[in-house]
Amino acid sequence: MKPQIFQRAEIEAVLEHAEVIRAIEAGFRAYSRGQVVVPPVGSLAFEQPPGDLHIKYGVRRGAATFVIKVATNFYENPRQGLSSSSGMVMVFSAVTGFPVAIFFDGGYLTELRTAAAGAVAAKYLAPKHVRAIGVIGAGIQAHLQVDLLRQVTDCRRVVIWARDEAKARAFQVRGFTVEVADSPAAVLAACNLVVTTTPSPTPLLWANAVKPGTHITAVGADGFGKQELDAALIAAADIRAVDSRSQCFEYGDSAAALKSGLVTEQAFVELGEVIDDPARGRTDDVQVTIADLTGVAVQDIQIADLACSLLGVSQ
Amino acid sequence: MKPQIFQRAEIEAVLEHAEVIRAIEAGFRAYSRGQVVVPPVGSLAFEQPPGDLHIKYGVRRGAATFVIKVATNFYENPRQGLSSSSGMVMVFSAVTGFPVAIFFDGGYLTELRTAAAGAVAAKYLAPKHVRAIGVIGAGIQAHLQVDLLRQVTDCRRVVIWARDEAKARAFQVRGFTVEVADSPAAVLAACNLVVTTTPSPTPLLWANAVKPGTHITAVGADGFGKQELDAALIAAADIRAVDSRSQCFEYGDSAAALKSGLVTEQAFVELGEVIDDPARGRTDDVQVTIADLTGVAVQDIQIADLACSLLGVSQ
Repeated sequence: MKPQIFQRAEIEAVLEHAEVIRAIEAGFRAYSRGQVVVPPVGSLAFEQPPGDLHIKYGVRRGAATFVIKVATNFYENPRQGLSSSSGMVMVFSAVTGFPVAIFFDGGYLTELRTAAAGAVAAKYLAPKHVRAIGVIGAGIQAHLQVDLLRQVTDCRRVVIWARDEAKARAFQVRGFTVEVADSPAAVLAACNLVVTTTPSPTPLLWANAVKPGTHITAVGADGFGKQELDAALIAAADIRAVDSRSQCFEYGDSAAALKSGLVTEQAFVELGEVIDDPARGRTDDVQVTIADLTGVAVQDIQIADLACSLLGVSQ
Repeated sequence: MKPQIFQRAEIEAVLEHAEVIRAIEAGFRAYSRGQVVVPPVGSLAFEQPPGDLHIKYGVRRGAATFVIKVATNFYENPRQGLSSSSGMVMVFSAVTGFPVAIFFDGGYLTELRTAAAGAVAAKYLAPKHVRAIGVIGAGIQAHLQVDLLRQVTDCRRVVIWARDEAKARAFQVRGFTVEVADSPAAVLAACNLVVTTTPSPTPLLWANAVKPGTHITAVGADGFGKQELDAALIAAADIRAVDSRSQCFEYGDSAAALKSGLVTEQAFVELGEVIDDPARGRTDDVQVTIADLTGVAVQDIQIADLACSLLGVSQ
């Protein structure tokens, strides 16, 4: 009864982006319907060198398996030529508790399910005609977000800003043209679909720079002490979607907006609720919409289950 | 940079009981000195079939590695000839976040570090002359507790009670004589060192059955809804040691005693504090002492670190 073990390359080879997006979409719907048990995220912070650990886990009610995902981010790894993100995803039998599959994915499943959530958010919240895709940050997640947006929009024009201008200049995703902007505000001026992917501790996007008809997906602020969107920007939006009320009300952009007092919990909708009832999403081309994504264990469950079925793991 | 993977037999082959006990003892001392970061335990309960999952993790301040332990208990597994406990222990670099070792130990490291904690508790709290070792429950943990007590007492006489009398009759540990008692109270009557190892939801040991000079180590109640010792028994004890204040005040025997109002938080001492200052432990042969053990991540850290060094894992 040894678990099957898979390395990153095997996992990458079987996962199709369109299929991952469908699995993540179905996961958010099930989550918001209360069909998934997701305990609070476990976390641990490291100071020297700086890094953090997240443990996300849970189970779809009645499922044959449950999933535990360990994700690490050690920000100085790239200086040694290593990926900043690492971790592993574990699938266990919900009948015996025994491990059935271990994915040594080096953080890939997390990166991919996170990008897939951005695509789902854009599918339901972005304006019909996307003029240009704005990207804040130029790391792995920025690349993957653009790559997966390919599945939900015809736009192939990217406008990017990153703190490290050299990385912004080097940014490329197959099939997309890329222009480098000189500020986050310049990205907002040029684009009506914007994705933020940074670990910034302070806001990068502000209310006064946002034009009607813009959608912003905020992916970076996934823990305490991180914030990409100013509170007033969230307050000014017409629709504020969160992947998980419990997580987004605790940390990240929406939590900061709530703390500011400019907006109340009732002003938020869960992404899964929008999927279930698209009338709760964008209904015209002038609304400003925001999706605040912190990453929910249901995404890890969905992508791990998909990988298991594509890799022939017997449960 | 793939992690080294070890199976249960390899781990069992290198771990000496006496060495494990030393490592666990040092771990409790470090924990109570505040030298270990231990976030709250993650957990998930399953109903059909009944089971539970615990995730314990943490890091010794300044250590080169951190540890995450996943432990499952699915109580109907033995009906299919499977162990009820399973899980895995993961060691990660605290410099890069990358996994360095994975122990597919089938729950062995958890069972062993739990039994080692019982030996440490007995070392500091049991009376000098142990007349007989009382055991409540007849599972894996009951066997291991007795086996490891060998390291800290000369007594080789066991008196056991278990709900399943056939299991009690079949109980044996090399070098020990075993008598079966007809009730938990009869165990208390015959023994002055008693270990409880059951997942009982209601108390099995009561204050009126405890004689002066008894030490009780309660190992079974490691989560919500479990209790082996009556609140009045804990209240009546002269010394109440807990492996972790934060955990024991939240669930298990000590939490139930606190909830009863018969005893206050100030009446408890941590096992690590007793190790640091044995004067806080048993000081005569008539005191009644209790050690309430819920299992702390520092034990998982210590035993995983020991296994890493004995197995030559490079960090």
